[in-house]
Amino acid sequence: MDSTKKYIGVIGASSCPPEIYKLAEEVGSEIARAEATLICGGLGGVMEAVCKGAKEQGGITIGILPGVNKHEANPYVDFPVPTGLGEGRNVLIVRSADVLIAISGGYGTLSEVGFALRLGKPLVSLGSWDVSDEILKAETPKQAVNLALTQLKKLEYV
Amino acid sequence: MDSTKKYIGVIGASSCPPEIYKLAEEVGSEIARAEATLICGGLGGVMEAVCKGAKEQGGITIGILPGVNKHEANPYVDFPVPTGLGEGRNVLIVRSADVLIAISGGYGTLSEVGFALRLGKPLVSLGSWDVSDEILKAETPKQAVNLALTQLKKLEYV
Amino acid sequence: MDSTKKYIGVIGASSCPPEIYKLAEEVGSEIARAEATLICGGLGGVMEAVCKGAKEQGGITIGILPGVNKHEANPYVDFPVPTGLGEGRNVLIVRSADVLIAISGGYGTLSEVGFALRLGKPLVSLGSWDVSDEILKAETPKQAVNLALTQLKKLEYV
Amino acid sequence: MDSTKKYIGVIGASSCPPEIYKLAEEVGSEIARAEATLICGGLGGVMEAVCKGAKEQGGITIGILPGVNKHEANPYVDFPVPTGLGEGRNVLIVRSADVLIAISGGYGTLSEVGFALRLGKPLVSLGSWDVSDEILKAETPKQAVNLALTQLKKLEYV
Repeated sequence: MDSTKKYIGVIGASSCPPEIYKLAEEVGSEIARAEATLICGGLGGVMEAVCKGAKEQGGITIGILPGVNKHEANPYVDFPVPTGLGEGRNVLIVRSADVLIAISGGYGTLSEVGFALRLGKPLVSLGSWDVSDEILKAETPKQAVNLALTQLKKLEYV
Repeated sequence: MDSTKKYIGVIGASSCPPEIYKLAEEVGSEIARAEATLICGGLGGVMEAVCKGAKEQGGITIGILPGVNKHEANPYVDFPVPTGLGEGRNVLIVRSADVLIAISGGYGTLSEVGFALRLGKPLVSLGSWDVSDEILKAETPKQAVNLALTQLKKLEYV
Repeated sequence: MDSTKKYIGVIGASSCPPEIYKLAEEVGSEIARAEATLICGGLGGVMEAVCKGAKEQGGITIGILPGVNKHEANPYVDFPVPTGLGEGRNVLIVRSADVLIAISGGYGTLSEVGFALRLGKPLVSLGSWDVSDEILKAETPKQAVNLALTQLKKLEYV
Repeated sequence: MDSTKKYIGVIGASSCPPEIYKLAEEVGSEIARAEATLICGGLGGVMEAVCKGAKEQGGITIGILPGVNKHEANPYVDFPVPTGLGEGRNVLIVRSADVLIAISGGYGTLSEVGFALRLGKPLVSLGSWDVSDEILKAETPKQAVNLALTQLKKLEYV
């Protein structure tokens, strides 16, 4: 697998309680260990935690930002992309990702869940919106990333 | 109420069964009778039905299109806005609307429901996604538009 | 000609000296007299002037706004579309217009001139950027709108 | 300088004659030698050449794509970002870049030149659009990158 070409997108809220932060951090670490690239919204909360976890394991992180300033990215984003599109950037995260993992999350995450399902992107939920049978449910960070990797492998044979 | 400044957004799928089409048409007629402007995604299905209903009552309709060609709008759109943003145009419909009515709907509608809730736009559901207590539930087209109008009036006093 | 389907886009700076404001106002009036719909960026300066001129003659005006608030539109915009895309909204004005008239203008206008030429939209200049032989040059507001109307007629036969 | 945080944007046409291709390739190599990250539109022509040159020197390349498919990126793009925004993605390249180098180029490049000037991004021209005194003119690839690096250093002290 060419790590720079396989993106796992992670979606979740920009603020979260410590236990969700810890889960997201573990998801990020697992993504990095699998040598996939992490793409997310680049801000705080779940987005920061997953980037932090990825960087702790030497992974690569991309942050698609709503604003016009790179410096709004959390400190664990390697490649910030300031779009100036506001919430409109949500669709870019979904488009760029090959598979997505939703972690908990609020209404912004719900818009991304809608886009993922609409665009036919495989979507794994770790305690996130339960709105479709097409969403793969995971109980742990490791299981979430494993499900995502299985989906990535399927895409390679298409 | 200045009809040209009050937008009721209607969101729903681009194809739908006849009974949903009829419901959407009635919603459009009620919006026009209330002298509000209709804004939607401008394509077929629920979008076409609601525009048709509005035009039957002399209303005004705006269609925010995903593609680059005005002619992809349904024939009941007065003012098509071809964006070339694909699904990314969903956020523009939500941003432009003062209140929204979701009619039935698929995953694209879900992304718009997420945006409406995220951006704090009042949202009425007529048999659409039941994902939040913040969504106002309606049983009939008339009730849906009445709920939307009540929300519009509240906005005038802000 | 179906007035609601033919858009003349006008591009120009959000602040301008009185003599340019007057020119733009006349362009707006001519557009309305020709029963075409005006589409522009919806803000001040040239955009306000052209909308004002159009409304004085009973025309219809659409404003594609950079921000998220309808109320940033100038008072002569009938149908504001708040995009939240910032300068990214420039491409939407060009995409939506059937033909464009550039009046004087700064760097934002230059980006729109580039898009118009790139997307093959007929472009008339009234004292604006002189960067291509494909741009039609006008000396007066009336001549600018006449050139635009001639281009619109050609499009009808395509 | 933190290489992952400093983006030099390169703008130019998606097809170009061999002599321009060679110039762009040298620009890419110089960017990589300076340990800056290259950001561009990710397609062919000048975009491919500059990515190729950067990769030959071990640099990092980001491609902000107009379409929805990562695979439309040229083979020298490390991190493709498929936006689905069409030409609307041009503003994202300009927003993301700290400084820009325009190489030759057509009308799409002109829209980006307009955005760069509008958004106050330092802009170096290597045989590209000569539309403003604010554009820094370069005669050679090395000089173009040196001018860009000088601008980057100024930004660090702001």
